[in-house]
Amino acid sequence: MQAVGIVVEYNPFHNGHLHHVTEAKRTTNSDVAVAVMSGQFLQRGEPALVDKWHRTKMALQSGVDIVIELPYIFSTAQATLFASGSIQLLEAMHCKHLAFGSEQGTITPFINTYEVIESNRDLYNSIIKEHVQQGKSYPQALFIAYEQLTQHYPDAYIDLAQPNNILGYHYVEAIKQLHCIMQPATIQRIAAGYYDAIDTSSQIASATGIRQALFGGQNLTEVSQFLPHVSIEQLQIWQHTHGQFASWESFWPLLKYAIIRHTPQQLKQYADVAEGLENSLIKHAATSDSYAEFMNSLKSKRYTWTRLQRMLTHIFTGVTKEQLHQTKTPSYIRILGMTKQGQAYISSIKKSLTLPLISRVAAVSDPVLAIDLHATQMYQQGVAQFSNIKIDEDYKSPPIRF
Amino acid sequence: MQAVGIVVEYNPFHNGHLHHVTEAKRTTNSDVAVAVMSGQFLQRGEPALVDKWHRTKMALQSGVDIVIELPYIFSTAQATLFASGSIQLLEAMHCKHLAFGSEQGTITPFINTYEVIESNRDLYNSIIKEHVQQGKSYPQALFIAYEQLTQHYPDAYIDLAQPNNILGYHYVEAIKQLHCIMQPATIQRIAAGYYDAIDTSSQIASATGIRQALFGGQNLTEVSQFLPHVSIEQLQIWQHTHGQFASWESFWPLLKYAIIRHTPQQLKQYADVAEGLENSLIKHAATSDSYAEFMNSLKSKRYTWTRLQRMLTHIFTGVTKEQLHQTKTPSYIRILGMTKQGQAYISSIKKSLTLPLISRVAAVSDPVLAIDLHATQMYQQGVAQFSNIKIDEDYKSPPIRF
Repeated sequence: MQAVGIVVEYNPFHNGHLHHVTEAKRTTNSDVAVAVMSGQFLQRGEPALVDKWHRTKMALQSGVDIVIELPYIFSTAQATLFASGSIQLLEAMHCKHLAFGSEQGTITPFINTYEVIESNRDLYNSIIKEHVQQGKSYPQALFIAYEQLTQHYPDAYIDLAQPNNILGYHYVEAIKQLHCIMQPATIQRIAAGYYDAIDTSSQIASATGIRQALFGGQNLTEVSQFLPHVSIEQLQIWQHTHGQFASWESFWPLLKYAIIRHTPQQLKQYADVAEGLENSLIKHAATSDSYAEFMNSLKSKRYTWTRLQRMLTHIFTGVTKEQLHQTKTPSYIRILGMTKQGQAYISSIKKSLTLPLISRVAAVSDPVLAIDLHATQMYQQGVAQFSNIKIDEDYKSPPIRF
Repeated sequence: MQAVGIVVEYNPFHNGHLHHVTEAKRTTNSDVAVAVMSGQFLQRGEPALVDKWHRTKMALQSGVDIVIELPYIFSTAQATLFASGSIQLLEAMHCKHLAFGSEQGTITPFINTYEVIESNRDLYNSIIKEHVQQGKSYPQALFIAYEQLTQHYPDAYIDLAQPNNILGYHYVEAIKQLHCIMQPATIQRIAAGYYDAIDTSSQIASATGIRQALFGGQNLTEVSQFLPHVSIEQLQIWQHTHGQFASWESFWPLLKYAIIRHTPQQLKQYADVAEGLENSLIKHAATSDSYAEFMNSLKSKRYTWTRLQRMLTHIFTGVTKEQLHQTKTPSYIRILGMTKQGQAYISSIKKSLTLPLISRVAAVSDPVLAIDLHATQMYQQGVAQFSNIKIDEDYKSPPIRF
């Protein structure tokens, strides 16, 4: 049996994701798709709309055969570490291919980009450094360096201004640097841009657009054209059970409390809190009645929205820099769910696995896994701000089977 | 002008308190009563029913002339430090007398008790030690030592089984050890025992009994016979504004979140968390849906209810052992409110004060005061769990005047 790996968040699973997984299997001739999926907290530094169990169910009914959890220390990290953790897990699952969605749509430009940067690393870095010193922002300097580097060579390169191209680049980089057997492939993204609002004449919308529509008070019927029926069903179950979707806005009373409970000095134990931001966080949290008001007052030239949100994720969960940086290497594979086909694939590779396969967490004591269990508990406290019904606990949840 | 000092919490101010302050002024021939009052968190390790502003208003309309705040580091401490902080502040306010309520009702037995213990300190301690080694609890051993010590002397001693006698003993001890000019006096408590439930045939009920009645769902009318009208009025204003009274039960979602957000190791930074209790706290908090359920599952032979609650207070506010133990000496006098008579008294002593008098906190940077301002913010977060209306902020609240 042959497997293709995909890196996903499914927040929520929509028609674009369906296209991606279907094409990933078709174009790589794979029997199964293995998805490494972020748990309760995501790379944009946000709690997931619905918990990982609901998102796993969406995936398993739409073409994904195995869902494994990307540990919190990777799922909330910047792109390089996020990609590295994901790639290591998919390689450990013996995937033959990695298939990622991109604006580019063909793999060669990704390889070219990786190789031109890698073989000119010193020059590349010195151009970046030069422009940063001249007052350019890091992303600006990076673009200038990239332009300078690629203009001398005739090959096709990716457009690094496209968000999915950037993520794809990091996957390719990780595959190369980790010397993976797994081969990269890419699927052309269709229709919706990453950050686009929904367009009612289409069947494709970005997850960002769908979330905006959901939080904008629109009901599920109005976004249903963009999601497979099984996704709508899981969102309905969540909404029926908990009344609303999880968000920083609904978690705000706890996040605010967590921030102002600390002294500035104590806040520095969390990743990225430095350079006086510890004082701004406390000052603005104390006077803000909503997350929107808080983020609006906090806005910083030095920090991107995403970086601020990741920082807040760690303050919310209480996961310190020290805990976060304890390792860069996954030490286990946690199965969140699988289809019959997925189960057959696991049986076929079981004997050659180099990482332990975890399907029940009760007996395991791994510090990285402990953070994931903790993250679920913290997510549950957030949900408890608006719902009396508890989400499933890690200890009591065997892998979901379809 | 002559002042009598009293140590109070007024949670809430009731007819027994009215009797106490009236008798304190009458028997000591004082023009004014100066009350040192706990702020938002109390010595039993609980958030106050209503905030310090509402309680100050109750006091100033019932015979108290000046209310000064007992800083958090003293108000949430065990009896010795609680008494020492209170006595130092009243001495700093040049009170001629300290008048405390007691079951005993006369001061000589307190002095006798202090002197017999003090002059036999080594023997006393060795008897305690001996019995602790034989397996007795510390309070049991203390009683045995006290019995052995006093039986050899003909004087009258206090009954240390009475809770207000114990507090009074600590006031007398502090006055003696700090070599205060202030003289101790005691007022006989009337009718209600410290922990007694309310008795509808009386006009006196303990604050504990009144709180139990309030949380038991009884409305204010049913407890109104035990409180001065002005107290009922303040409770009504609070209830009208916030819907319910503050309690650990209403703060529970935040307290639970604060506990399980920590690793066991991190919990040890709070006072009294040791000996494996850090693990029990996390384990039981995670599975408890209410404060009552939590405390019931946590009950410990080693720790009294009050000691557990004080520990939880510090976890809730995030005030570490290190912050708590930074000093045992008040460095300022914070005025929460005063009557015209109180103001006249302050004018009369102002020039001879040795501690700075603080009426507006904005300009002050004192680490002990910073903890008080922080405690108010944390109390506010608890209140925000059930009310959208904010309590008054320290920064914006000048002393209340009546």
